[in-house]
Amino acid sequence: MSRFIKKSSKKAGLPPGALIHVGDKKAEEVSIRIIDYNEKDFEERDLSPVHETFSCKETSTVTWISVDGLHDVDIIQNIGEAFHLHPLVLEDVLNTGQRPKIDDFETYTFITLMMLFYVDENWQIRSEQFSLILGDDYIISFQEKAGGIFDPVKKRIKNGKGRIRMRGADYLAYALIDAVVDNYFLVLEKIGERVDSLEERLMNDPQSEIAQEIHLLKRELIFLRKSVWPLREVISSLERGESDLFKKETEIYLRDIYDHTIQVIDTIETFRDMVSGMLDVYLSGISNRMNQVMKVLTVIATIFIPLTFVAGIYGMNFKYMPELEWPWSYPIVLIVMMVIVVIMLIWFRRKRFL
Amino acid sequence: MSRFIKKSSKKAGLPPGALIHVGDKKAEEVSIRIIDYNEKDFEERDLSPVHETFSCKETSTVTWISVDGLHDVDIIQNIGEAFHLHPLVLEDVLNTGQRPKIDDFETYTFITLMMLFYVDENWQIRSEQFSLILGDDYIISFQEKAGGIFDPVKKRIKNGKGRIRMRGADYLAYALIDAVVDNYFLVLEKIGERVDSLEERLMNDPQSEIAQEIHLLKRELIFLRKSVWPLREVISSLERGESDLFKKETEIYLRDIYDHTIQVIDTIETFRDMVSGMLDVYLSGISNRMNQVMKVLTVIATIFIPLTFVAGIYGMNFKYMPELEWPWSYPIVLIVMMVIVVIMLIWFRRKRFL
Amino acid sequence: MSRFIKKSSKKAGLPPGALIHVGDKKAEEVSIRIIDYNEKDFEERDLSPVHETFSCKETSTVTWISVDGLHDVDIIQNIGEAFHLHPLVLEDVLNTGQRPKIDDFETYTFITLMMLFYVDENWQIRSEQFSLILGDDYIISFQEKAGGIFDPVKKRIKNGKGRIRMRGADYLAYALIDAVVDNYFLVLEKIGERVDSLEERLMNDPQSEIAQEIHLLKRELIFLRKSVWPLREVISSLERGESDLFKKETEIYLRDIYDHTIQVIDTIETFRDMVSGMLDVYLSGISNRMNQVMKVLTVIATIFIPLTFVAGIYGMNFKYMPELEWPWSYPIVLIVMMVIVVIMLIWFRRKRFL
Amino acid sequence: MSRFIKKSSKKAGLPPGALIHVGDKKAEEVSIRIIDYNEKDFEERDLSPVHETFSCKETSTVTWISVDGLHDVDIIQNIGEAFHLHPLVLEDVLNTGQRPKIDDFETYTFITLMMLFYVDENWQIRSEQFSLILGDDYIISFQEKAGGIFDPVKKRIKNGKGRIRMRGADYLAYALIDAVVDNYFLVLEKIGERVDSLEERLMNDPQSEIAQEIHLLKRELIFLRKSVWPLREVISSLERGESDLFKKETEIYLRDIYDHTIQVIDTIETFRDMVSGMLDVYLSGISNRMNQVMKVLTVIATIFIPLTFVAGIYGMNFKYMPELEWPWSYPIVLIVMMVIVVIMLIWFRRKRFL
Amino acid sequence: MSRFIKKSSKKAGLPPGALIHVGDKKAEEVSIRIIDYNEKDFEERDLSPVHETFSCKETSTVTWISVDGLHDVDIIQNIGEAFHLHPLVLEDVLNTGQRPKIDDFETYTFITLMMLFYVDENWQIRSEQFSLILGDDYIISFQEKAGGIFDPVKKRIKNGKGRIRMRGADYLAYALIDAVVDNYFLVLEKIGERVDSLEERLMNDPQSEIAQEIHLLKRELIFLRKSVWPLREVISSLERGESDLFKKETEIYLRDIYDHTIQVIDTIETFRDMVSGMLDVYLSGISNRMNQVMKVLTVIATIFIPLTFVAGIYGMNFKYMPELEWPWSYPIVLIVMMVIVVIMLIWFRRKRFL
Repeated sequence: MSRFIKKSSKKAGLPPGALIHVGDKKAEEVSIRIIDYNEKDFEERDLSPVHETFSCKETSTVTWISVDGLHDVDIIQNIGEAFHLHPLVLEDVLNTGQRPKIDDFETYTFITLMMLFYVDENWQIRSEQFSLILGDDYIISFQEKAGGIFDPVKKRIKNGKGRIRMRGADYLAYALIDAVVDNYFLVLEKIGERVDSLEERLMNDPQSEIAQEIHLLKRELIFLRKSVWPLREVISSLERGESDLFKKETEIYLRDIYDHTIQVIDTIETFRDMVSGMLDVYLSGISNRMNQVMKVLTVIATIFIPLTFVAGIYGMNFKYMPELEWPWSYPIVLIVMMVIVVIMLIWFRRKRFL
Repeated sequence: MSRFIKKSSKKAGLPPGALIHVGDKKAEEVSIRIIDYNEKDFEERDLSPVHETFSCKETSTVTWISVDGLHDVDIIQNIGEAFHLHPLVLEDVLNTGQRPKIDDFETYTFITLMMLFYVDENWQIRSEQFSLILGDDYIISFQEKAGGIFDPVKKRIKNGKGRIRMRGADYLAYALIDAVVDNYFLVLEKIGERVDSLEERLMNDPQSEIAQEIHLLKRELIFLRKSVWPLREVISSLERGESDLFKKETEIYLRDIYDHTIQVIDTIETFRDMVSGMLDVYLSGISNRMNQVMKVLTVIATIFIPLTFVAGIYGMNFKYMPELEWPWSYPIVLIVMMVIVVIMLIWFRRKRFL
Repeated sequence: MSRFIKKSSKKAGLPPGALIHVGDKKAEEVSIRIIDYNEKDFEERDLSPVHETFSCKETSTVTWISVDGLHDVDIIQNIGEAFHLHPLVLEDVLNTGQRPKIDDFETYTFITLMMLFYVDENWQIRSEQFSLILGDDYIISFQEKAGGIFDPVKKRIKNGKGRIRMRGADYLAYALIDAVVDNYFLVLEKIGERVDSLEERLMNDPQSEIAQEIHLLKRELIFLRKSVWPLREVISSLERGESDLFKKETEIYLRDIYDHTIQVIDTIETFRDMVSGMLDVYLSGISNRMNQVMKVLTVIATIFIPLTFVAGIYGMNFKYMPELEWPWSYPIVLIVMMVIVVIMLIWFRRKRFL
Repeated sequence: MSRFIKKSSKKAGLPPGALIHVGDKKAEEVSIRIIDYNEKDFEERDLSPVHETFSCKETSTVTWISVDGLHDVDIIQNIGEAFHLHPLVLEDVLNTGQRPKIDDFETYTFITLMMLFYVDENWQIRSEQFSLILGDDYIISFQEKAGGIFDPVKKRIKNGKGRIRMRGADYLAYALIDAVVDNYFLVLEKIGERVDSLEERLMNDPQSEIAQEIHLLKRELIFLRKSVWPLREVISSLERGESDLFKKETEIYLRDIYDHTIQVIDTIETFRDMVSGMLDVYLSGISNRMNQVMKVLTVIATIFIPLTFVAGIYGMNFKYMPELEWPWSYPIVLIVMMVIVVIMLIWFRRKRFL
Repeated sequence: MSRFIKKSSKKAGLPPGALIHVGDKKAEEVSIRIIDYNEKDFEERDLSPVHETFSCKETSTVTWISVDGLHDVDIIQNIGEAFHLHPLVLEDVLNTGQRPKIDDFETYTFITLMMLFYVDENWQIRSEQFSLILGDDYIISFQEKAGGIFDPVKKRIKNGKGRIRMRGADYLAYALIDAVVDNYFLVLEKIGERVDSLEERLMNDPQSEIAQEIHLLKRELIFLRKSVWPLREVISSLERGESDLFKKETEIYLRDIYDHTIQVIDTIETFRDMVSGMLDVYLSGISNRMNQVMKVLTVIATIFIPLTFVAGIYGMNFKYMPELEWPWSYPIVLIVMMVIVVIMLIWFRRKRFL
């Protein structure tokens, strides 16, 4: 449940902008990495978060400050002061479990996204908050813990391949968001495999635990939907150019992300549609088998109960039962019984019980 | 049901603006508390509602008049006259069970919200109406009874910490609304725990009362939805700046509340989605167990009914039954019976009844 | 069904504007009542509809012409000619079962609403059409039969209390519409009580007729929804000021009605949500009880059928059955039977059949 | 199914505007009827479609060319050339099964509608395409076969009653569309009767074929919805004045049709709502009766199976069964059996099986 | 599943615009065909993709470059460079499984569609991506493999019949899109036949595999919907004239495609509605038959179990059972048994078990 709603009791009654980390402590230590680059130069260094202070450099390079780990409120506050960030922004950075959103301030734009990962062990989707502050020539990114999702982007910057070194901070922001959205496809693939396997089992060998699995899969899809749906709005508002910090040339790339987001949402809805009917198929399967079980019982009982009664009749100990004395009684009774059986079988076949 | 629709029969046929308290009397006595503050000064006093009259002070302080208890119509009317409030506003204040809404008058803005509380004893959500009149430099708040939800706000004003003392009445209005919305998260947490516990029991040990619990939980979610959904519109219209009384600087804070409201609504919808499928899972579980019960009955009956018939045959008292005289009849019959059992068991296994 | 769609076969093929009364004749005689008032004067008189002709008076009073009963087409036509009403308007007045709507003509505004009444005897909601023509200084209202819903309004005019005597015809129109909408709350209260009682019985003592009652309640809610939903549009377009005949000062009152309408619709939707899940709960209850019945049968049959078979074995009349001669056979068989019973009971308890 | 999608395979691969009649041949021969009228004159004549050519007359009369039967492509093409119609328009006229739509060309407006008829024999709704080309002073109407739906309109023109002779071609177009929409109410009435009768049978005497009837009724409603829904758009765009050929005075009549269309759609949706819950009620009825059947079986079997076992015990042929010799054994056993029965009956009553 | 989401793992981490073919290799070799035409001339030739280079000819003809097969990235890149296409466009061309979309660049418009084919063998719908680049006087089309869907268009160009030779590249683009949409109707026809046949079997002879078939049909409809739905937006934005490359005269043709697309979507929705209720009808059928099976069992068991008990009574071996000695006992017992049977039958008939 903690995925669906974070414990926010510790925030109740606090003033707005109060900085408290809401969520699990996922990284051991907060690490801050600074990457400075322009078309020609590239510099990368770690920042010891405690001792140094930030200074917004007035150089012509793009500066990417990447913060991994959110549990140390002081560091976040430090950054906030250095870059004159609004307290509400910092509050949102720290309060993981945010709905994806975009807030445009005068000198910077604040974007919050959800990174999603599929955890194979428990078949659940894990989410991590990713916040991004895009300034004129800098980006500050906040992750709950260091993760490999942005490694290809870092590599591309380092190697100087592609467009990325030639463009500004807005292109870097795009590249990071793109990495997050691309990762959704991996999660969808995993979910798709599970839908496939469920469907196959449903058709071939429906076991009783399948109902629960369908339910769990539905829950994951609900979570996925809740996490991705608001993204549409965020990226659409980016694409419409609500933030001045995104340049005209980057717009076409934002449109590309938008298309991807729509595709992700489409696929989630499709999966939901596919899963939603599965339980009904399963239930109809149960009913069918119940029907067959009942037919077997009915056929056997209906045939033998009357026969047993007949046998019971001639098992009675009355003194005066003339049939008992007749020599042909026994074979006649046996023949009568067989006739009854045959008639019943014909009747059952007509009724389609057999 | 009284939560879903208030008894309004006593209002039928009355002219608009007729002042009648609709709802339960939740407080013993009406208490009025006045808080006056600006950046430097702070003054707080109780007002004996019967003897004093209100005067809209022309000082430079922010005045917060907090009315707890709504059943005394005269007091409300007094206030209405002192502040020149429209009769329809007073009617709405008294008529608890209002839909959250905002009405913008020329010199003041009227806002009605629902405060929600989770009552642990009966697992129900209780609602209380909270009305707010925001004037140029004053706020009048109406609650059904004195409650702790606004205590932290009062404390912050008293201690003079944070921004609140430096800002105007609009910021105070924001702070109060924020307190109401923040409280929703506590309710959601409780509901979330219940969803969790239901889901766990559904998976591990579904008892028959679970169907009713699911139904009750659904009802709470319906109530929650009904209470929170209109809030979205209210706060969105505030954020869009429809009321002139909210200053430009407060706007970003309103956006923050708006985000929270969306998050609350999202979470409610998610819970609804999660709960809606639970009954189906439960029903499929019942069907499954029924299936197993039927299989046991069918296997036992189908095996023993034919055997009993065979025994019944040789229990008949016919004089001329040659088999009865043969010395090996008894063991042969026993062996035949065992063969029947074995054949049946094999057949059942093939049919997957066992 | 006649509530859902009126017999319109008699209208097929007629030209537009053809005046034919569609609906039941609810009043014996058509009665026309004229109320004339301004701030100082008040006059009320009945009009013998057949002999007098209407004259649109050029006085400074507000004139309310209230027509009760619609089956006399001539009278309606008379009025239409006197006030130069469009034939389509008269057609709509006569054609009961109209969808609530508003049509704005140059010199008058035509509004059609549904009055709803809850009939206790058959638990059904009855609807009556109420049409209203608002002119510059007059109102013509058409009801299917004389009814008490507007009596409080008439009283207020007569007594000269409140605002109503000081305002124009538009305020009177508002007051009438308000009376109609206020009456919806009474219907909702009744429906709410039925929802409550159904829910309680569902939880405590679900009988088989409950399924049909749920269905009937659903039908009433469908009817209610169909009747009220279009009202939203009507009043919203009034509030937006599409009709020039409503003065600026009346606008805030229209907003009040709008809020009430939304609240009515909200409550209907809430009831629908609550009722929609009830049948599932009932069905799960049936399944549960079926399960228990089957368990009882299975336990009894499964225990006694094998025992009866054993007894049957020793009831066979073979000459050579050594066990029959042994002195301890009988008690041993009895003990074996008891052991079988005990084993079965343990097995059933493990399988949770008991 | 052919009602839902027409065989369009014969059109695949053809260029746009290719004229091929898609649909059944419903009339034997194509007949063309021309009606010419103005306020004073009226002329009606049949046109032998093969020999004559059309000429767009420059007179001051309104000309209505009514084509009944669509299977003769040449005739349609002739008309198209005479009136300079776009090939795509002719294609749409011939391709029955069109979605209702309106296309505005510079000198004429093209409207396609569905005429619906309820066929009593097979309880199905039959549809026929009706196309209309409205020019400045002429109308060309295309029907699949001659039908009585427009007879009243023709009569009104002939008799010169009402407004129709005084108005232009646009009013005639309105009158034709109005006749089509009015006819929907007749279909709705029939459907309404079926809904009623189904509901009554569902309540009083649910037979097994009711499930199929509900399904068939649903299908008709789906078809009805598909046919009527797009009409809303068509008429709404007419009402908004998108076609210049409709004069200002006709607008109020279009609004009237619009209201009717909305009412038709409303009623269809209401019927859908009512029918959608019926199957659930039926299923709950089946479950209920199953429950009762099971209870009867369980009570009888549970009472007699143990008794039969007891009788079986004393039917065993052991030599040493002391009870058999006792003189009171028989009555004691009978009494014990009766006690068992009584206890069981009490237990069943408590369990609510009886 | 691969139809619902393509394996995109190989793209993760790559920069935007990276060219990688995602999807199956459907054609053996990439073939490029160039068609050059204007009103007078026509030229068609194959291009050996490896050796030649493209040159955007400055002639007055329309040039259609048709690429069949997408797995050779180099060729695509060649074309991209020759026509100065944006890397993201090429990426979309190669990444099959795209959502239909339109992107308007300054000098060309990029459109992606899905071609759908119904595969009779496995009853599945197969999709192929079709991309189209429309320039001022050229079109580049990309298909996954050579297919006959565009043959009629090529023929029409070759034969010089119809409008196509007289119009520009935009008309050709229209003709190609039209061919794709027309093909949807063939798929719908096949699906419609399957819906029909399912419905008939549901009514007449519901077998247990029908549940799975309904589920599979639903899945196809979900897929169809997902593939066609976005097309609506694409064509609507074309029709609204967002791309300057489509001339005014072509607009009416685009409107025609738009109508067709809406019709396709309508029909899909209708099929979904029809199929969605089928499983319920099937389930109600199962329940019904189960009911009948149970009734048979109950009637037989309830009649014979008491009789067998009576027979069992007189099969007991007590020494002192006075009835056994009476001469009329046997016939009396037989008569009593018959009376029991008759009473039971009457009772069953009343209870409607028979």
